[in-house]
Amino acid sequence: MHRLGILLSGRGSNFLAIHRAIADGRIHDAEIAVVISNKPEAGGLESARSLGLTAVAIPQQGKGPAAREAHDAAMIAALTDYGVELVCLAGYMRIITPAFVEAFPNRILNIHPSLLPAFPGLDAQHQAFDYGVKVAGCTVHFVDEAVDHGVIVLQKTVPVFDEDTAETLAARILEQEHLAYPEAISRVLSGRYQTIGRRYLPR
Amino acid sequence: MHRLGILLSGRGSNFLAIHRAIADGRIHDAEIAVVISNKPEAGGLESARSLGLTAVAIPQQGKGPAAREAHDAAMIAALTDYGVELVCLAGYMRIITPAFVEAFPNRILNIHPSLLPAFPGLDAQHQAFDYGVKVAGCTVHFVDEAVDHGVIVLQKTVPVFDEDTAETLAARILEQEHLAYPEAISRVLSGRYQTIGRRYLPR
Repeated sequence: MHRLGILLSGRGSNFLAIHRAIADGRIHDAEIAVVISNKPEAGGLESARSLGLTAVAIPQQGKGPAAREAHDAAMIAALTDYGVELVCLAGYMRIITPAFVEAFPNRILNIHPSLLPAFPGLDAQHQAFDYGVKVAGCTVHFVDEAVDHGVIVLQKTVPVFDEDTAETLAARILEQEHLAYPEAISRVLSGRYQTIGRRYLPR
Repeated sequence: MHRLGILLSGRGSNFLAIHRAIADGRIHDAEIAVVISNKPEAGGLESARSLGLTAVAIPQQGKGPAAREAHDAAMIAALTDYGVELVCLAGYMRIITPAFVEAFPNRILNIHPSLLPAFPGLDAQHQAFDYGVKVAGCTVHFVDEAVDHGVIVLQKTVPVFDEDTAETLAARILEQEHLAYPEAISRVLSGRYQTIGRRYLPR
């Protein structure tokens, strides 16, 4: 049984999409071992508990590099304690440090609401809307040391309509996120892939 | 009758796609007034002549800013002489200067073989392939002072297949370019659009 660790900072709609996909068999032979948030008030923690899942808040204590390092160590320890094989970031609003990446090499996934490498960083959907693109989408990628940068597992597109607002566009992208993330997790858990340079390929 | 000016530096496959679209009525009430190349040996010039179109080579004389400025002035003069209303860059391998943009405000289109703002600049298809994107495409946009930057009229996507090479991907993108460019030209020539910020919208 593959053990997933979910990291989130908000309501965690992608976490819920992953949970549903496990329940209905789109992600096979997997379970959510733990849901962790840096924010004790994150709605996703409460959702997790109401689903009978283990939910843990690990807020950062204090500020500065030492506090950040300590927080990282606590996150890594928790994920290790719960036997997590694959870490899935689902709206986790912190920069992942190199130490974290090294602790889970090629075992951290993230979903980003743009067709990377376009529009990395915050508010990607607004960035895309304001830029005037005609096609938007989302990207599931491995996490490496750079922000929104690792090897891409999957991308899904959505059209931008003339009558869109940034909000209607974001909602359309989110629907695709909820499909893309489970699909990508399922593929990665299968282990039947290789990476050649930056290219993720089945084998 | 809308008069188009085509600028190219190579074989001009997008020029030929535009020509076909005029011939079969996808671009309505338009003609190619002149095809201009900075390269006298460009294959597109010969194709243009064999199609009975006016084809002109305007190579840059000498080097440096003054030579570049003189070349720009000669290009602008030729386009003006031939009564060009809309300038279509079709593999024109020169940076468009601010003076050129000012001479044809919102009347220069370019096609770029990526989903901008991803992969601006040269060899966009190779850039995309090497980055490992799962979706690629092309963009028709108005030309402004920055490279591959102006307001986007149209984007078309293509999938990247696991068995692709950069070359098969580039060929798949090129097919979509040949559809996208005539479609975008037709829309722009209709005049039924507005731009709000960077967003191109029909009206």
